[in-house]
Amino acid sequence: MKKTLRKIAFIAALSSSSCFAQSTASVVEDFKPSTFNQPGQEYPMVNSQGYARFKIVAPAADSVRVSLGLGGRGGTKLKKADDGTWVGTTEGPMDEGFHYYNVNIDGGKFNDPGTLNFYGSTRWESGIEIPAHDRDFYALKNVPHGNVQQVLFPSPSTNTSRRAFVYTPPGYEKNTKEKYPVLYLQHGWGEDETAWMNQGHANLIMDNLIAEGKIKPFIIVNTYGMTNEVKWGRMKDFKIEPFQTVLIDELIPYVDANFRTIAKPSHRAMAGLSMGGMETKTITLNKPDVFAYYGLLSGGMYAPEDIKDKSKVKLIFLSAGSKEKPERILEATTKLKEAGFNAVSYVSDKTGHEFLTWRRSLLAMAPLLFK
Amino acid sequence: MKKTLRKIAFIAALSSSSCFAQSTASVVEDFKPSTFNQPGQEYPMVNSQGYARFKIVAPAADSVRVSLGLGGRGGTKLKKADDGTWVGTTEGPMDEGFHYYNVNIDGGKFNDPGTLNFYGSTRWESGIEIPAHDRDFYALKNVPHGNVQQVLFPSPSTNTSRRAFVYTPPGYEKNTKEKYPVLYLQHGWGEDETAWMNQGHANLIMDNLIAEGKIKPFIIVNTYGMTNEVKWGRMKDFKIEPFQTVLIDELIPYVDANFRTIAKPSHRAMAGLSMGGMETKTITLNKPDVFAYYGLLSGGMYAPEDIKDKSKVKLIFLSAGSKEKPERILEATTKLKEAGFNAVSYVSDKTGHEFLTWRRSLLAMAPLLFK
Repeated sequence: MKKTLRKIAFIAALSSSSCFAQSTASVVEDFKPSTFNQPGQEYPMVNSQGYARFKIVAPAADSVRVSLGLGGRGGTKLKKADDGTWVGTTEGPMDEGFHYYNVNIDGGKFNDPGTLNFYGSTRWESGIEIPAHDRDFYALKNVPHGNVQQVLFPSPSTNTSRRAFVYTPPGYEKNTKEKYPVLYLQHGWGEDETAWMNQGHANLIMDNLIAEGKIKPFIIVNTYGMTNEVKWGRMKDFKIEPFQTVLIDELIPYVDANFRTIAKPSHRAMAGLSMGGMETKTITLNKPDVFAYYGLLSGGMYAPEDIKDKSKVKLIFLSAGSKEKPERILEATTKLKEAGFNAVSYVSDKTGHEFLTWRRSLLAMAPLLFK
Repeated sequence: MKKTLRKIAFIAALSSSSCFAQSTASVVEDFKPSTFNQPGQEYPMVNSQGYARFKIVAPAADSVRVSLGLGGRGGTKLKKADDGTWVGTTEGPMDEGFHYYNVNIDGGKFNDPGTLNFYGSTRWESGIEIPAHDRDFYALKNVPHGNVQQVLFPSPSTNTSRRAFVYTPPGYEKNTKEKYPVLYLQHGWGEDETAWMNQGHANLIMDNLIAEGKIKPFIIVNTYGMTNEVKWGRMKDFKIEPFQTVLIDELIPYVDANFRTIAKPSHRAMAGLSMGGMETKTITLNKPDVFAYYGLLSGGMYAPEDIKDKSKVKLIFLSAGSKEKPERILEATTKLKEAGFNAVSYVSDKTGHEFLTWRRSLLAMAPLLFK
């Protein structure tokens, strides 16, 4: 009896970490190009089980390794094929959704020429998309589309023009009498203002929600949170003031002056993923008269005692992936509710600290905003 | 005397092709990071003479070569330094302005992790900027900035949503009574709708021209010209109809419906660089009632007999780099003028078939449009 139990536990441990050795019999040969590939590129490919396969041309190289793979194994080593290309498949299925990666060629870090680049880890990285079973919510559909506007706004505090991306919902150009609420939405450490639209598909998520009548249209603004001025692991050294000044004193007034916004705290939200959540928490607490809706996506939590004036907060949204120990998010939400806050939690099934968690979090949060 | 003449001719030949052997004494050691580098990256670097210097980390590689270099020499071979990095400097100064390149590592084509990527040659390529003496006209300045909007427009003919970028000038959001002329501006072969804003700085050129009062504000629209469906060198096989349908029947009506345009031929221009010039010529001739301003930038020329109704053409603008045999552009302009057209030519000094020619061409053309 004891032996059987141990065997079951062993199998469970294996499958929870997905670290089983690759058996060629188990890999279904229905690989297709990843949806983020460069025009005309076949590789990287993904199969229906979520395995990723890579092919890199570097005939005279001694070693080619892809950083993507199952946890703790140093990625996927490619093998030289007869035609001089390097080919390899991940040892097991990857989590659904978007993953950053890079390619190590003879000791140097490069990108896969087959796929598009995305800003993460403070560099433009390769990206691959493992089709999620629920990918329909961020698909490009034949519905009215909002625009994503690159804005260069004056920033006296940093003595330059800074960039923001502003999503304006479908109809914004034509409904010239209508004014809109605004969500300020921050990226994580290593990323920048391009992340939410490029890897997050925030614009498509909004287009689809609006087309289905699930939300009232609102504007989304992304700008660089200056998060990468501090090294990973040294977050405690991060000073919020420079970014807080840019956001509160420069960007928000610019957006309110140049877009048809409802320029009131009751129609302004701030949310962020990972380190952008930390920024959101700090700034919403420092500036309680600016935002009424707060969202932390894999980005920590509020305690009831953090917030001085409960009446100013209309929503606290906390989320995480199921692989990120979401219990603390759920507990924090319970405590906030008990203290009388409108707190909502969301856990993304079978995802970790990655963009599918955050796409889904936006999907869950958007209908709760500006009620 | 004869000997002296020959010597002078020899020197002239050398300097016109810039193919002199590198003398370390002649390279000024004032290298600075290229303005297109990724955040925090020191290399690639450029010196005040226009030499480019590269540093690539690939300690176990056998050979590293950068495609950029003087014509016909296969780029720049890097040498392994004591610290395991690969370093090299171009044999001579590069032309001023923007250049695409890639890095060959042991026979494979990759990008330089130090710099940003730009879509050219039907792939995202590395890019470097050799500071031009006249770079002020496309510099990011403390002036009001227009927005660059990513638009997804419905395209029944290709059964998808297609992407365009729309530059709206400063003040567009606030001056809600004002309507604007539109320039449809096409990229070249191997490029896409990102080229004019990313490597062309078209938005900054416009912002600066408007701030100096040199032009009346207008809108610019870039979309993918479907040019890369044909192989380089097989241009004759290119069929204009699919793109013409997208542009004329889908994009222009969408832009006129969703932006405050003056929706008349007298306030609509089409221009394009290289193969985008070929598209411009073909479409303006096929559809004489759509555009009144035509621009071919390193993209061929019109003959007077090409145009049936002279009264419909308000401007023909032809340009080329001085290294592109611009005589044929000048001759064509003369013939057009003699035939009674308002034709203007522009030659970019000391540049070839490259983006500084086209940035300058836009600078020269913009003030002539919509008069």
